[in-house]
Amino acid sequence: MKPNRLLQLWSEGRVAANAWLGLADGFAAEIVALGGFDSVVFDLQHGMAASADLPRLLQAVSSSAAVPLVRVPTNEPAMIMRALDAGAIGVIVPMVETAEQAAAAVSAARYPPAGTRSFGPTRAARLHGPAYHLQADAEVIVFCMVETRRGLDHLDAIAAVEGLTGLYVGPADLSYAVGVDPRMDSDDAAQVAAVARILAACGEHGIVAGIHTADTAFARRKAAEGFAFVTVAVDTAALATETAGRLAAFRV
Amino acid sequence: MKPNRLLQLWSEGRVAANAWLGLADGFAAEIVALGGFDSVVFDLQHGMAASADLPRLLQAVSSSAAVPLVRVPTNEPAMIMRALDAGAIGVIVPMVETAEQAAAAVSAARYPPAGTRSFGPTRAARLHGPAYHLQADAEVIVFCMVETRRGLDHLDAIAAVEGLTGLYVGPADLSYAVGVDPRMDSDDAAQVAAVARILAACGEHGIVAGIHTADTAFARRKAAEGFAFVTVAVDTAALATETAGRLAAFRV
Amino acid sequence: MKPNRLLQLWSEGRVAANAWLGLADGFAAEIVALGGFDSVVFDLQHGMAASADLPRLLQAVSSSAAVPLVRVPTNEPAMIMRALDAGAIGVIVPMVETAEQAAAAVSAARYPPAGTRSFGPTRAARLHGPAYHLQADAEVIVFCMVETRRGLDHLDAIAAVEGLTGLYVGPADLSYAVGVDPRMDSDDAAQVAAVARILAACGEHGIVAGIHTADTAFARRKAAEGFAFVTVAVDTAALATETAGRLAAFRV
Amino acid sequence: MKPNRLLQLWSEGRVAANAWLGLADGFAAEIVALGGFDSVVFDLQHGMAASADLPRLLQAVSSSAAVPLVRVPTNEPAMIMRALDAGAIGVIVPMVETAEQAAAAVSAARYPPAGTRSFGPTRAARLHGPAYHLQADAEVIVFCMVETRRGLDHLDAIAAVEGLTGLYVGPADLSYAVGVDPRMDSDDAAQVAAVARILAACGEHGIVAGIHTADTAFARRKAAEGFAFVTVAVDTAALATETAGRLAAFRV
Amino acid sequence: MKPNRLLQLWSEGRVAANAWLGLADGFAAEIVALGGFDSVVFDLQHGMAASADLPRLLQAVSSSAAVPLVRVPTNEPAMIMRALDAGAIGVIVPMVETAEQAAAAVSAARYPPAGTRSFGPTRAARLHGPAYHLQADAEVIVFCMVETRRGLDHLDAIAAVEGLTGLYVGPADLSYAVGVDPRMDSDDAAQVAAVARILAACGEHGIVAGIHTADTAFARRKAAEGFAFVTVAVDTAALATETAGRLAAFRV
Amino acid sequence: MKPNRLLQLWSEGRVAANAWLGLADGFAAEIVALGGFDSVVFDLQHGMAASADLPRLLQAVSSSAAVPLVRVPTNEPAMIMRALDAGAIGVIVPMVETAEQAAAAVSAARYPPAGTRSFGPTRAARLHGPAYHLQADAEVIVFCMVETRRGLDHLDAIAAVEGLTGLYVGPADLSYAVGVDPRMDSDDAAQVAAVARILAACGEHGIVAGIHTADTAFARRKAAEGFAFVTVAVDTAALATETAGRLAAFRV
Repeated sequence: MKPNRLLQLWSEGRVAANAWLGLADGFAAEIVALGGFDSVVFDLQHGMAASADLPRLLQAVSSSAAVPLVRVPTNEPAMIMRALDAGAIGVIVPMVETAEQAAAAVSAARYPPAGTRSFGPTRAARLHGPAYHLQADAEVIVFCMVETRRGLDHLDAIAAVEGLTGLYVGPADLSYAVGVDPRMDSDDAAQVAAVARILAACGEHGIVAGIHTADTAFARRKAAEGFAFVTVAVDTAALATETAGRLAAFRV
Repeated sequence: MKPNRLLQLWSEGRVAANAWLGLADGFAAEIVALGGFDSVVFDLQHGMAASADLPRLLQAVSSSAAVPLVRVPTNEPAMIMRALDAGAIGVIVPMVETAEQAAAAVSAARYPPAGTRSFGPTRAARLHGPAYHLQADAEVIVFCMVETRRGLDHLDAIAAVEGLTGLYVGPADLSYAVGVDPRMDSDDAAQVAAVARILAACGEHGIVAGIHTADTAFARRKAAEGFAFVTVAVDTAALATETAGRLAAFRV
Repeated sequence: MKPNRLLQLWSEGRVAANAWLGLADGFAAEIVALGGFDSVVFDLQHGMAASADLPRLLQAVSSSAAVPLVRVPTNEPAMIMRALDAGAIGVIVPMVETAEQAAAAVSAARYPPAGTRSFGPTRAARLHGPAYHLQADAEVIVFCMVETRRGLDHLDAIAAVEGLTGLYVGPADLSYAVGVDPRMDSDDAAQVAAVARILAACGEHGIVAGIHTADTAFARRKAAEGFAFVTVAVDTAALATETAGRLAAFRV
Repeated sequence: MKPNRLLQLWSEGRVAANAWLGLADGFAAEIVALGGFDSVVFDLQHGMAASADLPRLLQAVSSSAAVPLVRVPTNEPAMIMRALDAGAIGVIVPMVETAEQAAAAVSAARYPPAGTRSFGPTRAARLHGPAYHLQADAEVIVFCMVETRRGLDHLDAIAAVEGLTGLYVGPADLSYAVGVDPRMDSDDAAQVAAVARILAACGEHGIVAGIHTADTAFARRKAAEGFAFVTVAVDTAALATETAGRLAAFRV
Repeated sequence: MKPNRLLQLWSEGRVAANAWLGLADGFAAEIVALGGFDSVVFDLQHGMAASADLPRLLQAVSSSAAVPLVRVPTNEPAMIMRALDAGAIGVIVPMVETAEQAAAAVSAARYPPAGTRSFGPTRAARLHGPAYHLQADAEVIVFCMVETRRGLDHLDAIAAVEGLTGLYVGPADLSYAVGVDPRMDSDDAAQVAAVARILAACGEHGIVAGIHTADTAFARRKAAEGFAFVTVAVDTAALATETAGRLAAFRV
Repeated sequence: MKPNRLLQLWSEGRVAANAWLGLADGFAAEIVALGGFDSVVFDLQHGMAASADLPRLLQAVSSSAAVPLVRVPTNEPAMIMRALDAGAIGVIVPMVETAEQAAAAVSAARYPPAGTRSFGPTRAARLHGPAYHLQADAEVIVFCMVETRRGLDHLDAIAAVEGLTGLYVGPADLSYAVGVDPRMDSDDAAQVAAVARILAACGEHGIVAGIHTADTAFARRKAAEGFAFVTVAVDTAALATETAGRLAAFRV
């Protein structure tokens, strides 16, 4: 199993640039991944892809160096295991609200005795080698998203969960959590404070802070502040923006 | 059957802005189409989509006002008919080299007695109504691509083919035809001359000139020169450019 | 976001005619939807479609005026959210047995603060516009199915759940609930009584009563009784009945 | 390889009832096939299915006794071979205009020395047994469609082609051939005469006459006249008719 | 509904040979099934197939006599019901740890009053006939997997659950349960003892013992010991072993 | 563009071991490819895959070092171009009978001025880099199959075609060509002679001889004789053989 590039970057104190994939198309994913991102996330919560699409989508980015991750739709062990069995190197789990939930997510991604992952790395072992199950726990990463009021209330306990790789900030749901309309790159005081709290909790517990961003200047600012896993592009938004932008430029 | 928006634009002397689709993904197509283009072209010659994908792809852009066209992979009547039966409003036929070939393409898209299209508008008649076969000949458009030396040699005869809607310039193959490396938006004298000849032939025969472009300024220039069907965005390029551009902006 | 045609019909005191879709085929769905139904339901509980199929199926009926709904397989928030994110305008939730379960279903379909729907209307916002998340709560509908003994025991509490659009009667499971073999359009006294109780509960709480039917005369009778959302056709049954009927007529 | 039920029926002087499949959906096909038809035809010319869909569609009707046939989109040997390799028991070839074309179609479906079919019955041999290639020539059927003016001009020569199973009448294109608007079950004198000529030619050459019909009474009449392969149901039409009919009955 | 071949074998005291399917490909499944296995299991837990793939995969093995089973990814009633509605004749439920969980699995597979299966055998009733729902409870089989420490602690209670068909041993997870590295055909004393305990519990409660094996000699030994449902081949392993073996033999 | 491993092997006088893929499944292909073959061939002539499947299948083997090739169903330029645009590194063209046909196949695979390949390497350029079109002619390989009597008659002229990489022997069709039943690894004198003639023609014209084999001992013999491209495994056969073999070993 080749070393997880994200873990290498973080061990060197560097920031990983991530791309977010809402399309369920293999070639679109490959195009983005070949662009040089450190990782890509197939979004099964709000994107078009579903569990059934994972094998072909994960295969589609094999030609790139990007680490393939999956945002699962919910904190369901079987779904986390499927993503990993199909070759994903990590998961992002949304809507985590308690330390117990975070621990369950981590457990689903770790083989016994560390966790409760069921053995059956059908594609993972073909791809990563027969020793996969001995190495996976050290390479597979698990991010939890704290994005509700209840989650914020248990932030420290969540961040303290053993084996958790980091917390990932989803700004839109976090907006709701602090009582404002969903927005990216927000300068709303309450939202800024919540983001800061999450970053601080990560720092305190020695885990990685990740964040979804819209504007690259904002993304750079977040990286400077300490976020080491930064989503800087979203396929659906990029496609819409660039094509509509070209249309507008043509019709001017 | 609702009137073909492209024909309306051209009857008003206006220019149609087209988007080119190389992905075989329904949602990617819908995103682009909803961006406001006058038409979209599913590229079955060099794109990822194949004949089998047409029904779902054509359905995917039903939510938009964009006129759905298909570039067929080759001048094969059965393929042209399938695209139209599945609901496409027109086809672009590559590598046309003689008037006879152009006439065959047109014939495949027209019902008898005008042409030889086989009756069976399985989706088209559901979508456009039971009178579809009586109206289709007036609404369906056929572009041919003149992009080889041999095609250029027969340019006037091709442009004169009755029922042909227009000629579409594919700059890359045209580069080869004039002996230079493939390039878009070319300022190579021989290529510029070939493009001008095609535009002139269209003007002479009262048909529409179309062109593929890379830079929107170039596209605007071509529209000003008389091209009335201008491709101003390509999904795969847009996706690659915008995501990689954001990555570069982040990593600066 | 265009107004929900079903809500309009109901505000005018009219009855909506719905088609039920058990096939997972886009063109079959489009054919049915273009037939003029007020709505169509993609059945993810007992039909062939699964979560992964939703994007292309919802796109397939974009050419029609039918309001697209999804019967989710189970009362799982992530599934409800996925259906809505992919562009469905409402969900039908089976096997609801308590007010708490009904409230959870409604909550999953409403953005904060009304509910707990996670933000990420990936296709919905493309299709319905950038203000989708501000309008969705008013347009998205949620039906619950009360179809077990336990559900009937909590019927009034369920019908009283705030934000619930209505109750949908699934006759076959309801048969089991009242101790008889599954049947449609039943005249079994216990089943008739259960259906009447559901209709009455809807009337009392000012919500919509919906029902699945087999015979159109029965369907008309139910509409006359007050059911305002009536399924009058099922694709798989229609296909089987009509083709086998023609075969029988031929072989006579 | 089990005996071809159609050939058995014809050897007993009986008429085969066929269903036509324009949907590319496996379960829809299975529903129809399980209805008891003697055969089903997957329509790759005007239906939604394409070559890529054949394996799964042919598998989908394995649960039924219906003989699976494929209407290929065009008289292309590789396409005929693919249909047969994937397990189809016969093909219908559209737009045949000369004896030479008919002979080419037959040749593509027969192994040497009878024909030129390339060896590689990948699914057929799994399904029908290792002796498939020795038995296939006797079981596989080939229908040609004579449906153009030019085809009618060569009708006798086409019907005389050795190894041809029969001729199949496609009424709509035949309408065009005789100069009238496309119609099914036509009583137009010219069309009636053309159909009679095809039936007579089949009788003369001892091959099977087949026909597409809309009304079952018409279908019965044609069977009585001598057509031994009669299409009596079309999936897309059946689905549309029955669902829309139910809607109309409900809304009356 | 035709009698379940597995139940027949077991009633005759015979052993069923099963094949395990980790590929989500219809033709691969058909190839294996046509090889003569008594049953095949589509593995939705660790294989590539997901819920969405079930209809086409189950259709794909209709040409064989193998009884189609599904290992569901988790003990979720809606998933068990979907597998059965799509035509599976039984399920294998992983990670069962308590009698209550086993009872829930059984309940999901039985119609009321025996269980809580929701009525809607969309494909099952087409395939198995209109009386399917009256016969299904007697033909549908349910295996649970006891493969964790906690499961072993409740082994007897699980085996005693009414309506349970049998227990299936997944050696790899069982390895973890007894504290050793995952292995097949293990001779580790603790693992051997656990397997023996499961076999004994099955014997005591008159239910079927099933087991996953790697080596056929081991498989034969297990059959001799009393396991009546033995997996003797896995598609992915077979494909890898045989192709790599041939490569090695060639390169020697 | 990374150098073509096959060309490297041949330049070193070594033999390439190839795997043949008749399944249209991405994971099956990946499993085989990861087994260490020098190349894999997706068979679009007799396998289950069709043109539409190419993008995802070619992506599926990106994780391996195997050179991906495609056997096209027929000598159609648009099909050859599509395979290459989608990322294949070469094609095998069946049923080539004349030097003109061989030259057409080569031409379709070479950019002007060497050939007539249309520009549009949509996936190839993403995968192999922006200079792909400048390097492709040197890396892309073209095999023709001489497998008919007529092809054998023109063997030398075919082998002499400029730019042709080699000839590939398909034993089964060659059997027919020499008048015997289709067989692999044949010791029939006429077939042995035909194979020897093809090998000799390759030697004479300095091109690569390839062959399909069944038994690995036979394969080794052919390699020793001078065949430098040897198919030593076929996925469908391997899957059937190994699973049925295990079943037989179990049931003994």
